[in-house]
Amino acid sequence: LVGNRITRHYGIVNGTCNYILTRMKMEGAEFSDVLADAQRLGYAEAEPSLDVDGHDAAHKTGILASLAHGFWVNPKDIYVEGIRHITKIDIQFATQLGYTIKLLGIVKCAGENGAKGCKAQVSVYPTLVPNSHVLANVNQVFNAVYVRGDVVGDTLYYGRGAGQDATASAVLSDLADAALDRKCGAKNRVPPFVPHERKGAVVDIQDVISRYYLRLSVVDKPGTLAKIAAILGASKIGISSVIQPEGHEGESVPLILMIHDAPNSAMTRALKRISALGVVKAPPVMIRVETFD
Amino acid sequence: LVGNRITRHYGIVNGTCNYILTRMKMEGAEFSDVLADAQRLGYAEAEPSLDVDGHDAAHKTGILASLAHGFWVNPKDIYVEGIRHITKIDIQFATQLGYTIKLLGIVKCAGENGAKGCKAQVSVYPTLVPNSHVLANVNQVFNAVYVRGDVVGDTLYYGRGAGQDATASAVLSDLADAALDRKCGAKNRVPPFVPHERKGAVVDIQDVISRYYLRLSVVDKPGTLAKIAAILGASKIGISSVIQPEGHEGESVPLILMIHDAPNSAMTRALKRISALGVVKAPPVMIRVETFD
Repeated sequence: LVGNRITRHYGIVNGTCNYILTRMKMEGAEFSDVLADAQRLGYAEAEPSLDVDGHDAAHKTGILASLAHGFWVNPKDIYVEGIRHITKIDIQFATQLGYTIKLLGIVKCAGENGAKGCKAQVSVYPTLVPNSHVLANVNQVFNAVYVRGDVVGDTLYYGRGAGQDATASAVLSDLADAALDRKCGAKNRVPPFVPHERKGAVVDIQDVISRYYLRLSVVDKPGTLAKIAAILGASKIGISSVIQPEGHEGESVPLILMIHDAPNSAMTRALKRISALGVVKAPPVMIRVETFD
Repeated sequence: LVGNRITRHYGIVNGTCNYILTRMKMEGAEFSDVLADAQRLGYAEAEPSLDVDGHDAAHKTGILASLAHGFWVNPKDIYVEGIRHITKIDIQFATQLGYTIKLLGIVKCAGENGAKGCKAQVSVYPTLVPNSHVLANVNQVFNAVYVRGDVVGDTLYYGRGAGQDATASAVLSDLADAALDRKCGAKNRVPPFVPHERKGAVVDIQDVISRYYLRLSVVDKPGTLAKIAAILGASKIGISSVIQPEGHEGESVPLILMIHDAPNSAMTRALKRISALGVVKAPPVMIRVETFD
């Protein structure tokens, strides 16, 4: 990729989370049940926070961002969401809409900023991925990084992210490279950038624009959708589709809204107002949607 | 992959065929209509035989086999089927069964043969790929090679197989590698094997064992399935599932059989006998099935 500027990349970089999300989808199971089973089988640690809360994915995503853009990414600047809040029902609605939920590490160059270097989104969060996208079929403990170069277009690199054999293979490969480098006197043969050599900055998540899946628990009565749509409309947030399964009037039902591109800040403000509505019975669930355009 | 023996690899290595198969599936269209449109759009040549009859894929698959196993593969030893005989109805039945049809270049090491080197299957044919497999989502003009190493496990490399920008990116990358090689005096830094340095042989397709999708056009009358099942049973060929859509007695209907692992030679013999049955109204359609086990 030496002839390319990397404009964005998306990584499934935590095998434990991918294993849990894969089983939740295949078995229609809840997070806590699959986590317990994964712990029993040794796929998840007894203390799973580093994995399921997204911190391990954030570390790897920061390293990838540094390799792609050459500036040091302070871990505290990476916006991180894990997968604890992903429920069976959200996976089912995502499936119905043609999406698979994956924990993605996302790095998008938001433009060069002169002497200040590259401004980039660097974040980790569960994402609705279209089923027709190759990342939607990266399942079980497999990892993959989807890289977009300005010349080569889209590329993907896929394999096991852990396990003693896969790790041994990678270490052998690095040793062979290092031996060849020593043999021929090269000091740094391959690196696209020496990390930390350039300047750059991480964009605040509130300034990031994306699409959203929104699940509300609402009372099924006349005027509910109108109130919610009015708040979104006032915030200039567009609705691309709505699912409201048939319920019984007066009862609490899920309301699914697919939201067009909007800044995270606008969504944060609108969700605060929506949460305060009397007809909204539980905290809204918001999951970002990626179309890879 | 320097620490690995490559036990098998599967490639989607012809963008034109993949583009045509993707559109046939998405649009429910026939081969000839999509080919005509692809020619109009410049995705297929006016003389499309090199692509759609599998010859281009066979050339690339032979090169990959040489790189993986170090012996020269004579193109005439590669078994090749193209995609002209793939119909809308087969794509629809494959979808119903949970598969996507892809033209795969398949190289499987069938064991080391002492001083004679590696015996390998090297072939190109349309293949039913399970929808949950990552190759099933390699769509449009994208290419991918799925490589199994004995240590690293399964890996995938995905990107555009053609186009001036992707090609420019690859050439730049090769030039940069060559320049670094010259600079540090290395003569052959990366090749896993110098092709042609080892001995080896391509296995005859008739000796290859695989699973099969079989579509017969049969007369819907009592005893039809029994006659076909008897021939398969006598050849020790196992049926794993059957689809026979409801028809009108006495009329011609499709009969879909999914066949367990069997040698190609046994299938060839059985299909000759099945074709000769009075209740079988058209030449059988046989497409191989890959489970990636």
